[in-house]
Amino acid sequence: MDALKNYYNLFSTYQKLQNYDNEPKQLYEPISYILSLGGKKIRPLLTLMAAEAFGGKVDDALPAALAIELFHNFSLIHDDIMDGAPLRRGQPTVHHKWDVNTGILSGDAMLIRAYQCFESYDPIVFKQLMTLFSQTAIQVCEGQQWDVDFENISNVEMAQYLKMIEYKTSVLLAAALQMGAIVSGANEVEQQQIYNYGLNLGLAFQLLDDYLDAFGDPETFGKQVGGDIIENKKTYLYIKALELANEEEKKSLLDLFQTTNVDIYLKIEQVKAIFLATGAAIAIKEKISNYTEQAFKQLDGLNLSMESKQIFIAFGQYLMEREV
Amino acid sequence: MDALKNYYNLFSTYQKLQNYDNEPKQLYEPISYILSLGGKKIRPLLTLMAAEAFGGKVDDALPAALAIELFHNFSLIHDDIMDGAPLRRGQPTVHHKWDVNTGILSGDAMLIRAYQCFESYDPIVFKQLMTLFSQTAIQVCEGQQWDVDFENISNVEMAQYLKMIEYKTSVLLAAALQMGAIVSGANEVEQQQIYNYGLNLGLAFQLLDDYLDAFGDPETFGKQVGGDIIENKKTYLYIKALELANEEEKKSLLDLFQTTNVDIYLKIEQVKAIFLATGAAIAIKEKISNYTEQAFKQLDGLNLSMESKQIFIAFGQYLMEREV
Repeated sequence: MDALKNYYNLFSTYQKLQNYDNEPKQLYEPISYILSLGGKKIRPLLTLMAAEAFGGKVDDALPAALAIELFHNFSLIHDDIMDGAPLRRGQPTVHHKWDVNTGILSGDAMLIRAYQCFESYDPIVFKQLMTLFSQTAIQVCEGQQWDVDFENISNVEMAQYLKMIEYKTSVLLAAALQMGAIVSGANEVEQQQIYNYGLNLGLAFQLLDDYLDAFGDPETFGKQVGGDIIENKKTYLYIKALELANEEEKKSLLDLFQTTNVDIYLKIEQVKAIFLATGAAIAIKEKISNYTEQAFKQLDGLNLSMESKQIFIAFGQYLMEREV
Repeated sequence: MDALKNYYNLFSTYQKLQNYDNEPKQLYEPISYILSLGGKKIRPLLTLMAAEAFGGKVDDALPAALAIELFHNFSLIHDDIMDGAPLRRGQPTVHHKWDVNTGILSGDAMLIRAYQCFESYDPIVFKQLMTLFSQTAIQVCEGQQWDVDFENISNVEMAQYLKMIEYKTSVLLAAALQMGAIVSGANEVEQQQIYNYGLNLGLAFQLLDDYLDAFGDPETFGKQVGGDIIENKKTYLYIKALELANEEEKKSLLDLFQTTNVDIYLKIEQVKAIFLATGAAIAIKEKISNYTEQAFKQLDGLNLSMESKQIFIAFGQYLMEREV
């Protein structure tokens, strides 16, 4: 997708112009560090795409796009501390390279720097962007907390799970798009539609991640296949399998998710067999299709050029093109 | 000071009306908890005082005052993690009552909630408040990082130390006042003057804390007298004593600040003797007077009622009335 590559290059150039080479070094070096680790920069690209689609200048959306990218990376720094994760994108996490205190404080500074990005907008647009940003940021915190809470709740319900992934993952993608629309002066209905496109696409994307974690190709998935199963994570597949299981399957699955002292390869195979036998694996694929369809349906109502709509569809396909 | 008591009651009533009784509980309970621990609420009172002094309605300043109080408490939660502090205002710190992860995430949510407080202002005032708030917040982070850095730097210079306490403590007091002025439509010169009043008063306040930590009355000080000396903290007294010391005093002080395996009461007495003999104890008292004078001088240029000026002077005296 050439358009995507152009946005990527534009954003990367803009991001490199930002100067985090300030004192005290211990506060700012981790910010430069985590931004240097790369990543697909999906969120800022969404902001730029939406800005152009709604007839604004892409350049005007760069500060908002940067705010989103800084916020996302702030949340990665703090989440990695909470998860005790040693690696991020194949490199040491901030709290491993420095220490936990540095991760906490640099993360805080990064969140504040994200807010400061909006200061280049005039007061009316500034307030609209800031209000959406804060609402989204607080939802991401709530999603993260639900995710932590679910580790200690035995019967997570599907509605709770979907709310969690909506808050933890989807709202930021949705807000990134809406911000592009705000910068370009889109009306509230349009803003809501493009937000909903992002929200549904985000849900599809996260469920695809759940699916691939169990059934993905180890060569291309990027993370350890079976990781969620090893960690007894209550994902869509697990919750759906429990819903659909007969008594015997249910007992097996509950038992498998309580054992720690077990051959993990055997455990992964047995759990996957239950996901397949119960129909949970089919159910998640249907759900992914539904959300993707819902996302694309939002585009129908929007008064956008054919070209813009096609970019949003191509982007959705690009996001979902991993092997299902 | 009756006026102060009125502001205190007004703010407390407003704060109690806020609802942090949301889900997920693990995210929001720590926010209610730390706010329930009390404290003097100096910062929000400054916002209300300034709002009234500049002819605005006190009620209009309540959201900004709350933002400042939430930010201050957010910084306490994260600082307490970094310092490994078990107690805050005589009660368990958030990360001790819950855990470090809860402290990190609840703190993050509290910072975002602080930003949200401003949403009740119209866009022009909103942007002015937000810009000042972010600038101040980032300075507080920088001040905290300098404070951490100084633990591992042997020769902290006085200018660096004063910058650190300015950022870590004073800018928030100053910004609290300026926000009251902004809400009441004060012009930029007035905003700057009331900011400088707060900045100087904050510096005087922090240096008084340094002085009392060594020479305060254990009955009234509230913290352990000699705490900074036990922890080998490079405070104004220590840095000034090194500046003024003869060779023998300098060697003694450096030795005392490198030993850990020593009778702490003896160490405290010996260090205090050097603070007195070098003249550092007199120097800090002069510096405190200078900053307090500088603070009050800012009021001269301001076109405020006699009554308002007297409240700012009385507040300064109230803040500094601890035994010097």
